[in-house]
Amino acid sequence: MQKEDNNRIRVEIYGIEYQLRGKASADHIRLVAALVDDKMREIAGSNPRLDLNRISVLAAVNIADEYMKLRQEYEELIKLLERSQERNKGRLDL
Amino acid sequence: MQKEDNNRIRVEIYGIEYQLRGKASADHIRLVAALVDDKMREIAGSNPRLDLNRISVLAAVNIADEYMKLRQEYEELIKLLERSQERNKGRLDL
Repeated sequence: MQKEDNNRIRVEIYGIEYQLRGKASADHIRLVAALVDDKMREIAGSNPRLDLNRISVLAAVNIADEYMKLRQEYEELIKLLERSQERNKGRLDL
Repeated sequence: MQKEDNNRIRVEIYGIEYQLRGKASADHIRLVAALVDDKMREIAGSNPRLDLNRISVLAAVNIADEYMKLRQEYEELIKLLERSQERNKGRLDL
């Protein structure tokens, strides 16, 4: 096994090869690359006249949109969890 | 006010103009564009020899990486919340 914090993985995204590095597992890095590849193909499929750069920027925009929506939901969940734990604590004190 | 599900916002990402459409608010769309713009500038800054397409694909990869990590944390939070609510329910039954 290589050092975990120095994973270098060769992936193909939209027909171009990239060497990605990261602390994450090879599986995680491959999943991330597949997500970007899928998104680029989806965008190119529904907008056949877009150039390569616009396809990749719009893929980044789409993923960033999902990321920010998920972050909002995540923050709401944190609040719910805190309230739920507060209720638990209250009960223990009774 | 325009129809909410048909927002068209003009944004600039890494010096190129895009017209983004979406159901989200104009503020959300601008934040998403700013996130991609920031990420592209960060990547270009630390890799001065990358071409434009690689910069945007790597921006998409970076954002997808954060998205997938957040999704894992989100799923773990859901489990925690369910367990916490289960405990609450148990207490009410006593």
